Amino acid sequence: MFAEAEADPSLSKEAFKPLEARLRVALLDAQYRRLGQADKTLLVVVAGIDGAGKGAAVNLLNEWMDPRHIKTLAYGPREGEELERPALWRYWKDLPPKGNTGIVFGSWYAPLILETLRKKPNQDIIEAQCAAIMRFEAMLAAEGVQIIKLWFHLSAKAQKARAQRLLASPETAWQVSPADLKVQKKYDRICSGGRLVLKHTDTPHAPWFVIPSADEQMRAVRTAEAVLAAMRRRGVPRIAPAFPAPAGATRIVNRLGQLDYSAQVDEDEYESELGLLQGRLARAARSAKFRARSLVLVFEGQDAAGKGGAIRRVTHALDARQFDITPVSAPSSEELARPYLWRFWRGVPRHGRIAIFDRSWYGRVLVERVEKLTPPAKWRRAYAEINDFEEQLAASGALVLKFWLAITADVQLARFREREKSPFKNFKITPDDWRNRDKWDAYAAAANEMLARTDTAHAPWHLVSANDKRYARLQVLRHIVDAMEDQL
Amino acid sequence: MFAEAEADPSLSKEAFKPLEARLRVALLDAQYRRLGQADKTLLVVVAGIDGAGKGAAVNLLNEWMDPRHIKTLAYGPREGEELERPALWRYWKDLPPKGNTGIVFGSWYAPLILETLRKKPNQDIIEAQCAAIMRFEAMLAAEGVQIIKLWFHLSAKAQKARAQRLLASPETAWQVSPADLKVQKKYDRICSGGRLVLKHTDTPHAPWFVIPSADEQMRAVRTAEAVLAAMRRRGVPRIAPAFPAPAGATRIVNRLGQLDYSAQVDEDEYESELGLLQGRLARAARSAKFRARSLVLVFEGQDAAGKGGAIRRVTHALDARQFDITPVSAPSSEELARPYLWRFWRGVPRHGRIAIFDRSWYGRVLVERVEKLTPPAKWRRAYAEINDFEEQLAASGALVLKFWLAITADVQLARFREREKSPFKNFKITPDDWRNRDKWDAYAAAANEMLARTDTAHAPWHLVSANDKRYARLQVLRHIVDAMEDQL
Repeated sequence: MFAEAEADPSLSKEAFKPLEARLRVALLDAQYRRLGQADKTLLVVVAGIDGAGKGAAVNLLNEWMDPRHIKTLAYGPREGEELERPALWRYWKDLPPKGNTGIVFGSWYAPLILETLRKKPNQDIIEAQCAAIMRFEAMLAAEGVQIIKLWFHLSAKAQKARAQRLLASPETAWQVSPADLKVQKKYDRICSGGRLVLKHTDTPHAPWFVIPSADEQMRAVRTAEAVLAAMRRRGVPRIAPAFPAPAGATRIVNRLGQLDYSAQVDEDEYESELGLLQGRLARAARSAKFRARSLVLVFEGQDAAGKGGAIRRVTHALDARQFDITPVSAPSSEELARPYLWRFWRGVPRHGRIAIFDRSWYGRVLVERVEKLTPPAKWRRAYAEINDFEEQLAASGALVLKFWLAITADVQLARFREREKSPFKNFKITPDDWRNRDKWDAYAAAANEMLARTDTAHAPWHLVSANDKRYARLQVLRHIVDAMEDQL
Repeated sequence: MFAEAEADPSLSKEAFKPLEARLRVALLDAQYRRLGQADKTLLVVVAGIDGAGKGAAVNLLNEWMDPRHIKTLAYGPREGEELERPALWRYWKDLPPKGNTGIVFGSWYAPLILETLRKKPNQDIIEAQCAAIMRFEAMLAAEGVQIIKLWFHLSAKAQKARAQRLLASPETAWQVSPADLKVQKKYDRICSGGRLVLKHTDTPHAPWFVIPSADEQMRAVRTAEAVLAAMRRRGVPRIAPAFPAPAGATRIVNRLGQLDYSAQVDEDEYESELGLLQGRLARAARSAKFRARSLVLVFEGQDAAGKGGAIRRVTHALDARQFDITPVSAPSSEELARPYLWRFWRGVPRHGRIAIFDRSWYGRVLVERVEKLTPPAKWRRAYAEINDFEEQLAASGALVLKFWLAITADVQLARFREREKSPFKNFKITPDDWRNRDKWDAYAAAANEMLARTDTAHAPWHLVSANDKRYARLQVLRHIVDAMEDQL
């Protein structure tokens, strides 16, 4: 796989000049075509041997293309608030919009490559990292993010010669980094690690390209050719189903239908219990242990089930500096230009903080499914994507709790009527609400399937009867308080 | 000023009920009208005596209005990366778009109020803080952000009674914070501090309202009335000229006309000098001392002056993780919904980092002035606003360096022609460029006035002849390296 690159092929100035001119025109042309169509993001992952001239190759892409639509995204070891969120958070956060190109230094491969360089690499870690990367890239690809990965490679001799040439003059010596000088000792390990990584993560939708890097002109041409081929590719390559759509096998239980909706709480009991639960929540959220955890609350349910009221009862016990409420409605143009989970990744809280979603990423398998806003292949895939997302949240220290506030159709009708009559509640009822109501059964089926497929140990669903608002609010608080007290 | 509030007025349930109904309808109505017009942002600043029920009042606003268009913005003491930027950065960053409402806890008044509570307040600090606040609020107001400030107040007796009432039951005791319990001892100092703050910062465009808070219903009604009056206000109140438009007095020197454009560097000297300067820059940017500073580079100049090439020569010496290039063109809809400096505040670097602006906030007094995109009163005001912005940057540890790359009209013409001919440079030339060229003199006049009014000690302009690109690139690097070596 590295044989060609380790032969250190080179390109003469005479051969390079006409190639350069052709490639520059073609790259610009391809870049503007993409911008005009704005159908895809391109991510160029940069990896390889230190001192192979990765930085120079990226500078060249910026010079040859219109740099206004290229963003270099460079990452070091995780630090500060990055450590308080899933490892992939920073890549999600910076994802460029469709039509644009991101060049990624210090990508999601960095920890994996580091592991392969150890004297005794841990195979379990390597396998887990490879699997996580494959899932991540498959989801990006399926959502319209194109990925190519460049491995800059050269022989040990050429690497050493390049460093020495640069070191020979004070005009260039500063270009040599300490890492470049350590390559010689570990050259073989770097090659075998690279081989392993490339073999395990080379896919049609996110292919690796080995760039021979001993000769500057060869490196330039091969880099440009790889990027150009990616930009010109039309259509979506066949994507390995990292997140297979669920087979019909899982039994979908009619949990909404089987729920007991009769529970009630009288006003005195409610007021007393509410205060006590809020007190426990206030203490838990202010506890020292919570500073190393975070809390993600998801509220879903039929229209008029009382999500807003339940959320307010939670937030009244919290310090306003501690939480964010994200009301989720139709995505903005900025959000539509990225994979659908992007806007929720932006809301991932750091430690000590609470993120409350009033509706959520489950819109994909609820309203988008029922209203046919998303094709079945996409929303079917979303169950596994969502489970993976929530698993990453939980693994980074987040407590993830999801609530479905369930009401019966007659109660919804009564609440709609009441809202229409109230001069300060009628803003809460729109023609959309009536239209959704007509699709009651379709929404219930979607909710039941969602509950069956995404009720996981690391992010459980709590199905709460909300025909009595007081009962529902107390139940929500109780589940939160129990989970926090249990975990902290 | 606090006499009414310290009399602890109350409102009976009978008087409250009809008022509540009327206020809720009116608030919702006013909120939707604003959204429809989307002409203004409303900021509600919350301050006052601890334990007066500020939190409860804000909860009530969220309940009475449509909470999807209200954002509670709560801040504690500055921490983490907030400490590495100007104190106002976090408020700029979170500024809601037009049509929306932000409720601000822990606002820009917090440090000022804290100072007034000290045993021996420092009058210089107080005056400086008041002046900074007045400038900030005047600019926000002039840019379409409406501000009202609520001071929640009650008698010492009522404050104590409220805390004791809450403490009496486990259902409510958790609502009492340690700060609430400390109020009694310092009550008089809090009142005199509050009086001072309100007196010095009460303006027609950002007025203070004292909210009597002993009685829950009175507090609710007065809070709602203050917000409602603000939402209903039409037109812009007379704004005190915190940033007066400059009088004609400053002599505008024709610096562009007087520049010596003949300087040249031959290729050998250039290559050698470039490497040496890049080496010095690389060392300075990686130095330990730079980790407590930041660098802001602004590039302006005529079209085809070579800004992009100069920027690349700078970034080639830098670690890709260390800098961000912000190319500035016409503002997006998200940016148009905020004061014009908002998008640049978003790019303010934290310590150890470098922000490079390819065009900048100076667009306000260049292209926006010449193309008449902004009325004269606004761009005239911008000189002082920009100076204030840059002063805040410098005070927070940023080195601010500004470059005007200057070319003569004949050189521009030659470069335009060359770009048109080159198959991979013609993307850089558009009909706009030719149109701008027709306004050469108007742009030169705008640039000269800008140089005269914004060349400050804390953020100097470097006027660089760029008829010879090599000379210009070396000059830019030299200025940066000299400034960094001098300051670090």
